[in-house]
Formats: sequence, C-alpha cells, structure tokens
Amino acid sequence: MCEQNDDTVEINNTDYFESYGQLSVHELMLKDKPRTLAYMEAIQKNQHLFKDKIIMDVGAGTGILSIFAAKSGAKRVFAVEASNIAHTARKIISDNGLSDVITVLDERVEDIQELPFGVRQVDVIISEWMGFYLLHESMLNSVLFARDKWMSPNGTMFPSHANIYAAPCDMRELFNDTVGFWQDVYGVNMSAVIPDVVSNLLSKPYVGIVKQNRLLSKPVHIHSIDCNKISISDLQTLTNSSVYQVCKVGVLHGFCLWFDVIFSSTLGGETVVLHTGPDHPETHWKQTVILLPQSFDVSEEDAIPVTITMDSSQDNHRHYELSLEFGE
Amino acid sequence: MCEQNDDTVEINNTDYFESYGQLSVHELMLKDKPRTLAYMEAIQKNQHLFKDKIIMDVGAGTGILSIFAAKSGAKRVFAVEASNIAHTARKIISDNGLSDVITVLDERVEDIQELPFGVRQVDVIISEWMGFYLLHESMLNSVLFARDKWMSPNGTMFPSHANIYAAPCDMRELFNDTVGFWQDVYGVNMSAVIPDVVSNLLSKPYVGIVKQNRLLSKPVHIHSIDCNKISISDLQTLTNSSVYQVCKVGVLHGFCLWFDVIFSSTLGGETVVLHTGPDHPETHWKQTVILLPQSFDVSEEDAIPVTITMDSSQDNHRHYELSLEFGE
Repeated sequence: MCEQNDDTVEINNTDYFESYGQLSVHELMLKDKPRTLAYMEAIQKNQHLFKDKIIMDVGAGTGILSIFAAKSGAKRVFAVEASNIAHTARKIISDNGLSDVITVLDERVEDIQELPFGVRQVDVIISEWMGFYLLHESMLNSVLFARDKWMSPNGTMFPSHANIYAAPCDMRELFNDTVGFWQDVYGVNMSAVIPDVVSNLLSKPYVGIVKQNRLLSKPVHIHSIDCNKISISDLQTLTNSSVYQVCKVGVLHGFCLWFDVIFSSTLGGETVVLHTGPDHPETHWKQTVILLPQSFDVSEEDAIPVTITMDSSQDNHRHYELSLEFGE
Repeated sequence: MCEQNDDTVEINNTDYFESYGQLSVHELMLKDKPRTLAYMEAIQKNQHLFKDKIIMDVGAGTGILSIFAAKSGAKRVFAVEASNIAHTARKIISDNGLSDVITVLDERVEDIQELPFGVRQVDVIISEWMGFYLLHESMLNSVLFARDKWMSPNGTMFPSHANIYAAPCDMRELFNDTVGFWQDVYGVNMSAVIPDVVSNLLSKPYVGIVKQNRLLSKPVHIHSIDCNKISISDLQTLTNSSVYQVCKVGVLHGFCLWFDVIFSSTLGGETVVLHTGPDHPETHWKQTVILLPQSFDVSEEDAIPVTITMDSSQDNHRHYELSLEFGE
C-alpha cells in the first residue's frame, strides 16, 4: 500500500482487478504490432468493402477494429462484446467521436435476437478470432455462427482465409535451458529433478518462439480454411497426413505448428496477410510445438510420414487436443 | 496432449503440477547468478567457518547451500525444508554423495524438537531468507527463531548483516509504457482506460528494474540489521526519516527501495556482499518502488524530507505494508 499524507490511494471495489486483468490481455494484443497493423492495413487498403457498408465486429474488445472500419467510411458498425470491456469500448468510441457510427452490443453474438436500427444483414464481419496454432482457444465458432445468421449473401468475412502449417523442428535450446541446466548447477548434480521437468514439458504443447533455422523441413501446408464457406461441424476434427522431407542434419524433438490469415475479397482490392510463422516477426501467438516423448537424429536423407490430428475437446469446444502419429 | 503410437505421455497425479510449480521457483532462484554465486563465494572463501563445524540451513530448498557447506568441509549439515521439495533435496544430496554429511529435516524449523545425532547446538546458520526490499515475504523470522533456539553462543549467522537503501526516482519509462501507450493506439485515443491503469499501478508497490540514472539522489541507508543480534520484535515496525538531497533535474514518481546482505564473521575471513541495487547486476528481487499518487518536478536545489515505514502485517507476519509520508 502506498500512502501519502491525506492523499491516500484507495481501491474502490473488487471488480476492479478483474477489469484490469482483462485490460492487460487487450494491452498485450494491441501491442502485438504484426497483428494489429495487419488488421489496420487490411481495412485501410480495402475501403471499398467498408465505405457506406454495415459491419459486424465479433469479439470487439477495446473496439479498435470497429474504429478502423468506421474510419474507412462504414455506415454502421455493430461491435459485439460480451465481456466487461464492452463498457470501456463504448467510452473509447465516444471519445473518438464515433458513437453515431458504432453501436456496442454487450452480449454474446449467439444471443443477439435482432440488430438495432432494423438492420437485417451485415456486409462484412471483421473479427480477430485466432488462437494458438489458429484453433486452440479461438472464437471461430462464434464468428461462423454470426456469418450464418447475419451475413448478406454477397458479404465478406475479414479475414477471409486461414492456413495452418507444420514442420519438424530441433528444440535443442529448449531442452538445454529446461533440462540441461539441472545437470550441473554451480558444480552440483541436480539431475534428480529431470524426470519431473521432462514430464512437465511433454504434458502439453509448448508455446514459444521457434527460430526459422531450427525447422528441419520446408513448411508443409496442412490445413486451409475458407472463412466464407467452412461449417462449424468441419472444425470438429482436422487431420492431415504428410511426408516431411528433412532438409538438414539435426535432432527431431517435435513438430512446430503456426498459421497465417488472409484478408482478400472476391470484390477486388488488395490482399493482406497476417503471418505468425518462424520466418516472420514475433507475434503473441508465437509458435506451438508438439513435443515427442523421445528425440531422433535426422539427416537430409530422411522422409518422415506423420499424421497430425486436431480434435475439438468434448468439454470445451474452444479447446483442441493435438495428437501426432508416425505413419500416413 | 501429445500422443505417439504406443508411447503415450501420461500424467501421473495431481501433486505433480504443484511440485513442478515449486520447482520452477527454485529454478528462478538458482538461475539468479548474483544471488547464488554470492552464497557460493561467501562459503568457499570462509571455509574456516565451515570446516569440521555443524551447520543449519534454514529453508534449504534444493539443498544447494547445504551442499556448498558440505563441500567446504562441514562435519554435519541439517537442511531444514518444510515443503515438498525436501524429497528432491534428499535425492540431490544422495546423488552428490553427501548423505553422510547432510541430513534433510522435512519440517518447519519452529517444529524441530530435537536435532539428530544428539546435536544440541549449531555453529553456523546459513539461509537465503530475503524477500522484496529485504523484508516482504522474507523468512527472517524463522531464521531468528532457529538462531535463538539452536545457535551456539559463538556461532555465526551467514549472511550476518543486511542493509536497506532508498532513493527518490523518476519512473517516466514505466508511466510511458503503461499509461502513455493508451493515449494514441494506432491513431485511436484510448485514454478512457487510463484511470484504471493508474489505479492499478498505485494500488501496490511496483517491483521492477530501476536504472541507476533514474535515481534522483544518492542512495540513503535507511536500515541496518545485524542478524546475530536483532530480535523478532524489532522487525514489527521499521521507520526511517531522512532528507533526500536531489542531485539532478527530473520528475519524482516514487521512492526506490533495495537491499544488500553481508557475509562477514568476527572470526575473520573474507567479507562477501550480495547487492541488489540499481548500480549492480539484476537479481530476481529487482527493486521495489513506492509510487506516489502524483508526480513532482524536482531539481538540484530540492531537499525532500520523507518518512518511510515498514509495518509487519497483522494477517501475515511475512508480509509488510509500506507507507510514505513527506516530512520528518
């Protein structure tokens, strides 16, 4: 506690920390420049999709995408945000003089019975819905629900497409840092803890930065999603079997996954891509690695047939379980 | 989940993550080189205090300080550790061939009724007990309890002394990062969130790195602790009133606190100091800043009389509440 004479700092209510906790997540996302600048650029360079159009922003957060759309000339924007941050978004929109254009709807998009102003259809759905390796903790289901209920037949999803990529990878730095450290700690052998450290590492996919030079093959494109066409049921299970042609000597510790999303329209305009791969600037999604229970030495001669399956969890449809099997 | 053919990764029990969580805290502390190397150096350079002596290590963790003591020739070391990590420490000690010298006592030091092998007194108590700004979440009370109950009249506490320092500081980078960011977010005015951001920042002391050039006066030594003499009751409330002579133009945002601990003995040997101040390499304690509800422009002419009080919390004696008052 910080107290100063009669000007004591006080905390007003218990909601406060929750709301700040949520704000810090939005801060992290806003400070992710490749992410936010890709949306800004996509909207600015495709003003023909927004000018005088009706837009829905699913999961609007602080309202930044709605504001970009309004600045690109949208006639009306519905900023759908079910969490507490909706109140903040409304204030931000007002402070930016855009309350006449943007209406914040503070409910789940699935719960909207009718849109204000007698609107029946929207022309563009914008949303930043992507999770780790695209699908984990993503909001894509909600965005597709909104599309099926509210999108005009000639409407556009923005982003319009998404791709998932995979490549075998050498994670020696991770293992050196987290496992190797314990072998000699200031001259003391602490390898007794290594089984626990390894079990923890292998218990879940690893989310972190993988350097481009640690990929052991060219990226393999394992899934394409057309946001204008895919159905929610298509997202239940995604499986891909591919042969990964090793391109350098290394130690295979796992398979690295990442994605990109594409902003393009059949109505023309400029295509913008948001990349999250090892060959592009770091984003808050980083990369996701399925670590193998044991490592293998590999070299240029090797071709590795692997099936990667992403299964929507029974308990939480926003969570996926990753599995990996050698063989096609 | 990562699955591979018939070699599926399994998680065995719920204790597991707890124990890993705890391990990661020990990893952080072990990887703090200024901290661990100061203890190693202090013990290695003062072998006369350890050779053929009986040592108690309070809060032994992974057992590293006990092992340093054993390697410096201790006759017997009692490694007192009440948490689960005690089992790991025992395995590490065994792997390093030191089970004959080091005995792990997996209980709170306050609960020890008698020491093994008929030992009545110890010659040296080693412990890494320090918390943020020395006292917050520290184990000093337990270490003093151990001293009063088990230390020989000619015994040595190691570290033997501690000092707390303070200086007014300019935190412009912190305010720019956490407050200024919201003023212009990709051209959008998000200053609506600033009151919440500021309230959150001021609601508790800030723990982070303060650069030496952001201090606005020379460090003022506000408390000295002689670990061989101080009593537990002396730690209830620590107050210091000092005048801080501003040495440069800047903006006063708060008062920075840090500490050092000293390893020295009346029995001679080499003094070693573990520093955690802005003018020394970063440690996991970083620095602690009491932020003021408002900032002030200051310049070389200014002398700032301030009383800083550290009050042991009624609810949790390991927590302190900081308060700051202008005036002496």
